[in-house]
Amino acid sequence: MTEFELIRLLLPKLPTGPQMLLGAGDDCAILKPCDPDQELLFKTDSVVENVHFTADTPPEKVGRKALARCLSDMAAMAGQPTVALVTLGLPTGFDPAWVERCYDGLTMLARQYGVAIAGGETTRSLGGVFLSVSLLGVIPKGRRVLRSHAVEGDGVFVTGELGGSIGGRHLDFEPRLAEASWLAAHFTLHALIDISDGLAGDLGHILIASNVGAELFAPAIPIARVAKLRAREVVDAKPALLAALTDGEDFELLFTLPSSQAVTLADAWKKQFPLLKLSCIGRITAKSGLRLRDANGIRTLPTHGFTHFT
Amino acid sequence: MTEFELIRLLLPKLPTGPQMLLGAGDDCAILKPCDPDQELLFKTDSVVENVHFTADTPPEKVGRKALARCLSDMAAMAGQPTVALVTLGLPTGFDPAWVERCYDGLTMLARQYGVAIAGGETTRSLGGVFLSVSLLGVIPKGRRVLRSHAVEGDGVFVTGELGGSIGGRHLDFEPRLAEASWLAAHFTLHALIDISDGLAGDLGHILIASNVGAELFAPAIPIARVAKLRAREVVDAKPALLAALTDGEDFELLFTLPSSQAVTLADAWKKQFPLLKLSCIGRITAKSGLRLRDANGIRTLPTHGFTHFT
Repeated sequence: MTEFELIRLLLPKLPTGPQMLLGAGDDCAILKPCDPDQELLFKTDSVVENVHFTADTPPEKVGRKALARCLSDMAAMAGQPTVALVTLGLPTGFDPAWVERCYDGLTMLARQYGVAIAGGETTRSLGGVFLSVSLLGVIPKGRRVLRSHAVEGDGVFVTGELGGSIGGRHLDFEPRLAEASWLAAHFTLHALIDISDGLAGDLGHILIASNVGAELFAPAIPIARVAKLRAREVVDAKPALLAALTDGEDFELLFTLPSSQAVTLADAWKKQFPLLKLSCIGRITAKSGLRLRDANGIRTLPTHGFTHFT
Repeated sequence: MTEFELIRLLLPKLPTGPQMLLGAGDDCAILKPCDPDQELLFKTDSVVENVHFTADTPPEKVGRKALARCLSDMAAMAGQPTVALVTLGLPTGFDPAWVERCYDGLTMLARQYGVAIAGGETTRSLGGVFLSVSLLGVIPKGRRVLRSHAVEGDGVFVTGELGGSIGGRHLDFEPRLAEASWLAAHFTLHALIDISDGLAGDLGHILIASNVGAELFAPAIPIARVAKLRAREVVDAKPALLAALTDGEDFELLFTLPSSQAVTLADAWKKQFPLLKLSCIGRITAKSGLRLRDANGIRTLPTHGFTHFT
């Protein structure tokens, strides 16, 4: 099957949207200008065979993950995704059915979040499959939430449960788009990020960007059941708390806001998102660095979690 | 060197621009909304080691090519590029100096065309380097030029000279942005594309999209000197005319316009772009298919040139 035959197979199934003036099939996609009261968000990310998935991963989950990672980054800006472009690197002799299923997974998630797919490039790859997604989105003017405005006294919050994502959640996590938009609309978020490099690592990004430190309270950190199971059952697995602190690809929201809003937030959250846990895990300090407090006292944590090259 | 150390090295050197409200360093870039009298162009493309370049290719040229391919696609819509995002897949143990030089080539071309770089992701790649570029651009509302409006009687034009790009031009071609904008502003372009798959292949895209055919006049096809040299000197090289018809990665403009405008165009072009050849190589016909006329008569040509999977 040639590149062009493959594209002809895939194009008719791509979801479209009101922003799209011209979708796949020409040299570029054409989009409507965004509203003057909005700002544009722009993000790109890739998944690579044997790094982010394996030959055994169901292809639908590969396609889903490639888009979901970008959606999670858009959630980390409290934005709404609009239009995506896909580039797929394929080895010679690829299986067209694999590609179709990969696109099925990607487009199903796109439809769920109202994202139009403006085109799909394919290219040859000699070293296994890679899938690169570019995503546009919007935020209302003035509502952006960065990493760099955490201040002393803020509470540190995290959604969901952390650790052990490699057991499967890294393939079917839900990007927290609705949650982030709701938070930004109703509370004074000082800093917001999605956890892709691990809680300690991504909190480290906030601390450095904001020039502050943080103290976490160990018993408050929500540990995923799978991380606890792995700690008991898998040889050489990390202790569960360490997994929650350092495992990559949780894709939960990590944010800080004035502690004066903490109680209101906890109540409102339970009504709005009764099925998703929200935990206050610590507070921002003027003193730099990341510290963990538990029954034995307080100790300093390194802030490098999962990095792609180590 | 970790991903984060590498990013810290590269970020300060990225070119910025008036559209950028927030560049690299947070979860997404933030851009100003485009003018309401413009439409947005969106494109992504990748270059892959041992497909589009080799380990011997100077890294500056790898970076340059990755962006130049997207710029050429923007030219093919008569658009102006504005902001790019880069994703770089790197093997373990990569050479930071290689990456820096690769970015130098990319950013130098970006500055030349006024393109801001809104961020650079890196990811691990087990199968050699790949570089994926996403590009945004703008066109004035209503001035888009597609592939699908070629009509019977149009003249078929091509810029520059074709064939033998593999001899080096595929790494340092100039995207025809100024030429395409000027053409779209002053003439009634019916169809426009950039030649990436070879003249016959890309004209084939226009013919199919427009539901027409074309007849080319062999002596009018501008053959690059390197294609003639290769035909004489390289064992198994294509005959020069075949190279001009089917070699990929010429990245010249191919377009059709009413033949009534042909003479005016030829005169105005020489004044505007005295250093770049413009050739009328044939005409659009109602009869479908692609035909080549030479001293021996007329014959049908296949329209598949370079395809990535064959």
